Amino acid sequence: MTTSILPGLRNPQELRTFSIGQLEQLADEIRDALCGVVSDRSAHFASNLGVVELAIALHTVFDFSQDRLIWDTGHQIYPHKLLTGRYQEFDTIRQKGGLMGYPNPIESPYDLFTTGHAGSSVSTVLGLKTGDDLVCPDKRRAVAVIGDGALPSGIVFEAMNNAAGLRKDMLVVLNDNKMGICPRVGGLASYLDKARVAPFYNGLKRDISWLLNQLPMVGESVEHAIAQFKEGVKAFLHGGMLFEEMGFRYIGPVDGHDIASLRKYLEMVKDVRGPVLLHVLTEKGHGFQPACEDPVKFHTPAPFKRSDDGEIVPVTPGASSKAYTDVVSEAIFNAMAGNQRVAVLTAAMCAGNKLGRIRDEYPDRFFDTGICEGHAVAFAAGMAKSGLRPIVDIYSTFLQRSFDQVFQEVSLQNLPVVFCLDRAGLCGPDGPTHHGVFDNTYMRTFPNITVMAPGDEADVSLMLDFALQQDGPTSIRYPKTTAVTIPREPVPVAMGRGEIIEWGRDGMFVAFGALLPRCVEAMNRLRADGFDVGVVNARFARPLDTHLIFRCIEETGFVITVEESTLVGGFGSAVLEAANTAGLPTHHIRRLGIPDRFIEHGSRNELLADLGLDVDGLVSAAVSLAGERSFDQV
Amino acid sequence: MTTSILPGLRNPQELRTFSIGQLEQLADEIRDALCGVVSDRSAHFASNLGVVELAIALHTVFDFSQDRLIWDTGHQIYPHKLLTGRYQEFDTIRQKGGLMGYPNPIESPYDLFTTGHAGSSVSTVLGLKTGDDLVCPDKRRAVAVIGDGALPSGIVFEAMNNAAGLRKDMLVVLNDNKMGICPRVGGLASYLDKARVAPFYNGLKRDISWLLNQLPMVGESVEHAIAQFKEGVKAFLHGGMLFEEMGFRYIGPVDGHDIASLRKYLEMVKDVRGPVLLHVLTEKGHGFQPACEDPVKFHTPAPFKRSDDGEIVPVTPGASSKAYTDVVSEAIFNAMAGNQRVAVLTAAMCAGNKLGRIRDEYPDRFFDTGICEGHAVAFAAGMAKSGLRPIVDIYSTFLQRSFDQVFQEVSLQNLPVVFCLDRAGLCGPDGPTHHGVFDNTYMRTFPNITVMAPGDEADVSLMLDFALQQDGPTSIRYPKTTAVTIPREPVPVAMGRGEIIEWGRDGMFVAFGALLPRCVEAMNRLRADGFDVGVVNARFARPLDTHLIFRCIEETGFVITVEESTLVGGFGSAVLEAANTAGLPTHHIRRLGIPDRFIEHGSRNELLADLGLDVDGLVSAAVSLAGERSFDQV
Repeated sequence: MTTSILPGLRNPQELRTFSIGQLEQLADEIRDALCGVVSDRSAHFASNLGVVELAIALHTVFDFSQDRLIWDTGHQIYPHKLLTGRYQEFDTIRQKGGLMGYPNPIESPYDLFTTGHAGSSVSTVLGLKTGDDLVCPDKRRAVAVIGDGALPSGIVFEAMNNAAGLRKDMLVVLNDNKMGICPRVGGLASYLDKARVAPFYNGLKRDISWLLNQLPMVGESVEHAIAQFKEGVKAFLHGGMLFEEMGFRYIGPVDGHDIASLRKYLEMVKDVRGPVLLHVLTEKGHGFQPACEDPVKFHTPAPFKRSDDGEIVPVTPGASSKAYTDVVSEAIFNAMAGNQRVAVLTAAMCAGNKLGRIRDEYPDRFFDTGICEGHAVAFAAGMAKSGLRPIVDIYSTFLQRSFDQVFQEVSLQNLPVVFCLDRAGLCGPDGPTHHGVFDNTYMRTFPNITVMAPGDEADVSLMLDFALQQDGPTSIRYPKTTAVTIPREPVPVAMGRGEIIEWGRDGMFVAFGALLPRCVEAMNRLRADGFDVGVVNARFARPLDTHLIFRCIEETGFVITVEESTLVGGFGSAVLEAANTAGLPTHHIRRLGIPDRFIEHGSRNELLADLGLDVDGLVSAAVSLAGERSFDQV
Repeated sequence: MTTSILPGLRNPQELRTFSIGQLEQLADEIRDALCGVVSDRSAHFASNLGVVELAIALHTVFDFSQDRLIWDTGHQIYPHKLLTGRYQEFDTIRQKGGLMGYPNPIESPYDLFTTGHAGSSVSTVLGLKTGDDLVCPDKRRAVAVIGDGALPSGIVFEAMNNAAGLRKDMLVVLNDNKMGICPRVGGLASYLDKARVAPFYNGLKRDISWLLNQLPMVGESVEHAIAQFKEGVKAFLHGGMLFEEMGFRYIGPVDGHDIASLRKYLEMVKDVRGPVLLHVLTEKGHGFQPACEDPVKFHTPAPFKRSDDGEIVPVTPGASSKAYTDVVSEAIFNAMAGNQRVAVLTAAMCAGNKLGRIRDEYPDRFFDTGICEGHAVAFAAGMAKSGLRPIVDIYSTFLQRSFDQVFQEVSLQNLPVVFCLDRAGLCGPDGPTHHGVFDNTYMRTFPNITVMAPGDEADVSLMLDFALQQDGPTSIRYPKTTAVTIPREPVPVAMGRGEIIEWGRDGMFVAFGALLPRCVEAMNRLRADGFDVGVVNARFARPLDTHLIFRCIEETGFVITVEESTLVGGFGSAVLEAANTAGLPTHHIRRLGIPDRFIEHGSRNELLADLGLDVDGLVSAAVSLAGERSFDQV
C-alpha cells in the first residue's frame, strides 16, 4: 500500500476537509504503520488496531487543541500519536530516547496526562472540565475514552458518581472490545454483554409491544409474574440502564469501525448537557485477522512479520531461558499442588503473570478480580482470615493502588497474605508509569510485613515456601528479566537472615534482589584486580539481617547496598537506619539504586547502565570506595 | 430506666429466646448505654444510635460465632460490642487501655477485622465466604453492613462486581441513613433517594397500571415518548435496579428500626443463593432527638449531658484556642478570597476539615467527592492541569487511599496540587486505623513533591501561600491538636529552607512539624541546666535544607531529628540519606519519631509521652547524647 496521507498530515484539524473515503484510507495507513512498528519490537498492538476509526472520528468532530481528551490506560494511544503530527518519529516508539508508548505531555500538547495505570481518565476529565468552566472564557469540551477492561476499576465508579452529581457536560466513550488485556470478568462483564445486544433507541413500537408481551398472564403466581415482567423491562432497557441509573445519559451501542456512524453519534452527543456515556463496540485487533483471533497473545506480541503468504513469522527466536515470572508461576503452581489452602489472585494480569496453567488446573483457587487491585488485596485478606493462604500476584507498580488495603486489611490485621510483586524494578519500554521502583519503600513502611527479594532463581521457590509458612504477611519482589542462578548450594531461607556468597575484607556488596548476579560478576572482576571484595545476598529488607550487615560494616572496608528501587527510603535506607540506631558509623556505606527522579523508557539493561547499576558501575563504585578507604588509612 | 437485660447478657445466642418486647427493651438499654458513654468523652454517637435494632436483628437471625459479620467503617460498632459480652468494659471505650472505638479482633472473636477506613467490607466478606466455602465443612453465612456514606467508595463497586461474577451467597446490608459523616453527594445519592420512595415488590397490579399510563399518546414526538416511557419504567423499577444490574438481588427498602420487620427480611434473605443487597432505612441519631436534628454535630460530639429538663449541656467548656484544622481552614478561606483560581476538595470531611464556611461562601470552588479519595486526587490533578490551584484537604491516614493517584496523576505530571494532610500524627482515641503516621515516608517517596510541615501556627499561612505559588505539587501536614505559636518573627518560607529558632553548640533539635514547640521547651529546660542546645524548624522534608542540617551535624555536638511519623523512611531517614550521600558521619544523629509498630488508642499526649516524644523524652534524649559526646571527647 502506498502511504499517501499520513506523511503529510501536520495536525488533526486537517482531517475535517477529508471525505469518508479519505478517512478510511487513512485508517488503512495507520494500521499499516502499526504493523510496521511491531515487526521489530514488542509493543501494544491489538488494542491500537481496535481504536483506529475511533481516534479518527474523535479528531474530526472535536478540536483537541482546545477540547480535552484523555485516553485511559493509554496503551491504545498510537493512532492518536499518528494523527497529531508524530508519524515521522513513529518508528522510535518505545525505544530509548524515542516516543513513549503512552501519552506524554512532553511530546505533544495533544497528550494531556501520562497515563498507564487504568481508570483515572473520568476523574481527570471531570477535573479539566471543572477547571475550564471556572477559568476559561471559551467553552471547551471534555472527552474520556475508557476500555471495558478499565471500567470496573473503582475510581471510574467514584468519578462517574461525582460527575453525575455535578451535572458536568462531559463525554465518556466506552471502548468496549469485550476484554481488557485478558478476557473480562465480573458482574459488569455480563452486564455489558447484555447491553451489546440491546436494541438501540429506536424501533419504539416494536420494543413496547415486545415489552407488553412480557406482562404476566392470569393464573401465574404473583412473584413469578413480577420477576418475569421485571426481566422483560430490564432487557428492554438494557441499553445502558446501569449508567443511566448512575446519572449518565447513555447512547449506543455504536459500531466502532464505521467512521461515518461514529461521527454522526459524536456530533449528536457533543453538545448534550450533562454527562453522557457513548458505548462504542470495537474489535481488539480489528483489520489484522491473527490479532482478532488471539487478542491476548497480540496485546503486546513479540516482534513478528508477515511472510509473503500471510503467515506470522517471529522475527527473533524466543529466548529459551526462563523469566522470573515463569519461575514464580511454577513455584506457585507447585505450592498449590501441595497445599489445598493456597489460592492465587491476579488483577487482570493472568497472561502477564503467566497464570494460565494455574487457572486451568485449579480454577476454584484462582481468582482474577479484573483491574481492581484495591479489592484484590482486601479480598485476599478475607481469604487469609478464613484459613486460606492467598498469594496476591500483582505488578509492583499496580500494587501501589492497594497501598491502603496493604495497610488496613493486611498489615494491621497481621494476616498471612503473600504478595508476589512482579515487574519490580525497571520495566523497560513501558517507562515511568510501569517501572516498579517504589515498592522497597512502601512495602517496608507498615509493621508486620516480611519483605523479601530473591537474589537469583534458586531463591524463588525457597522464598515462596518460606512465605507460605509464615503467620503474617510477606512480600517477594522480582524484576521483568531472565532469571539467573548463581552456582552454589543456597542456604535455607530463614526469617531475617541473609546469605554470604563470598566474604571480602576490602568491602562487601549487599544486594537486595536480582541485581545479585551482577554483584557477583563485579566481585569477580574486582578480585582479578586484587581487591578482596565479597557479596551478601540480603534476601530480607524487613526484618534486616542486622547481625550480618553490621559484621560487614564493622569488619570490612566498605558496604555497597544494591537494589533496583528508589534510594528514597529503600533497602539502603533501612541499612542506614539500622546502623544509626545501633550507633555504628555509616560513612563507608554507599547506597546504589534508582535515583530520586522519574526514569524514562528504554531497555532494562540500557537504563541500568545509565544509572550505574551495570557491572561497570558496580566495579567503579567499589574502586572509588576502596580508594577513599586507602586515603582514610593514610 | 432500669438496665435489666444488658448486664446479664453473656453472648448473642441468648437473644434467640427473647420476645420482641424484650428485644425492644434491650434496644432502649443499649441507647441508654450509648448516652452514658458520650457524657464524658468524645465518641461516635449518632451512627451508633441508628443501628441498634439492626445489630439486634442480625444477632438473632445469624450466629456470628460461626457466620461472618463485618461492620464497614466500624464506628457504628458499639451496639455490636454491647451484644457480644462487652457491657462491663463499655465505659472504657476509646480510652487508653480500654475498648477500641472500632472492631478489634483482640477484644472479641465477634470482631473479625479492625476497620476504620471505609468500603472494604464487601471485599473482606467475599474473601471470608470464598475461604469458608473452600476449607470449612459447615456452611457459614457472610454479612457486610455498609453505610450509604461508604457505598460510593470505588472498592465497594469493585467487590460487588467480583461477588456478582463469582455468584457467592453473601448478604450486603445497606444501612441507608441518608448521610455519611456529612450529607452525601453524587449521582448515587439521588439514586438512593429515589430508591427510598420506590414501592416494595408488591402491589403489582397498581404498579403495572401506573406504568402503562406512562405509555406515550399518539402525536407526541418519538424521542420525547421514549424518554417519558423510560422514566416511567425506571421509576417503577427503582427499587434497586442499579444493584440488580450489577448482579445483586435487591430487597427493600426495610424499616431499620422495626426489629420484627428486620428479622423477617433477614430470615428471608438468609438462604437466598447468590449475592443479595438488603436496603435498610435507618435514622442517624434515632431515639435521641437532638442527634436526629443535627447528625453532623452528633457524629462525634464533644462530651455532653442532658439536664433535667432535657436540654443538652456541654460537660466541659469548649477550649477557646484554635486547632491546626481551624488555622488551615482559615488560611484556605483567605487564599480563596484572594485568588479566584484556588479551589478546595474534601472527601466527605467537610465537617472534620472545618470547611463549612468555605462551602457556603465559595460553593463553585468547593468540592466534596464523598469517601472517594482516589478520585479526589485525580480530579484535583485535572483541575490543576486546566489552570486552577486545587487544595486537597484530606486526613493523612485517608490519603493513603490515593497513593497511586499521588504517584501517577500528580507527581509524574508535576502538577500544582496542594495537599493539606490533616490529622497527620497520632490521632488520639480513634487509634491505629486513624493515626496519620506514615505520610512523611509516602509523601517523600515520589519525585517532584515538595513536602512541608508547619512548626507552629505562624508557619501555616506562610506555608500555604508558598505552596500556592509553586508550579509543582506540595504537601503540608499538621496534627489533630491545638495550634501553638512560638514567639518570634518567623523568617519567610523559601524552598527547601529551614529556620533556626536558636543555635546551640552542644547539639540541635531538628524538628519537622508541630512537635517544634516541645523542642523549644526542652531546649529551655536544657539551657537552664547548662547545656547549650538549639532548635531548627526544618519546615521541609523534601527538598531538605541540607546546608543548614549539615551545619548542625558538623558544627554542633549532636542532632536529634523529631517527627510525629514513622521512623521507617521518615524525615529522620531523609537526614541520614543526605548525610550519607554527602559522606558525613551520622553516629551523632538520633532519630525520634513513631516506632515501627502499630500504636494503640489513647490521648495524643499520653501516647506521645509513652513514645518519648514529650518534653521529658526530648530532654533525656539530649542529655544522653550529650553524655555520649563527652565520653567521645575524653
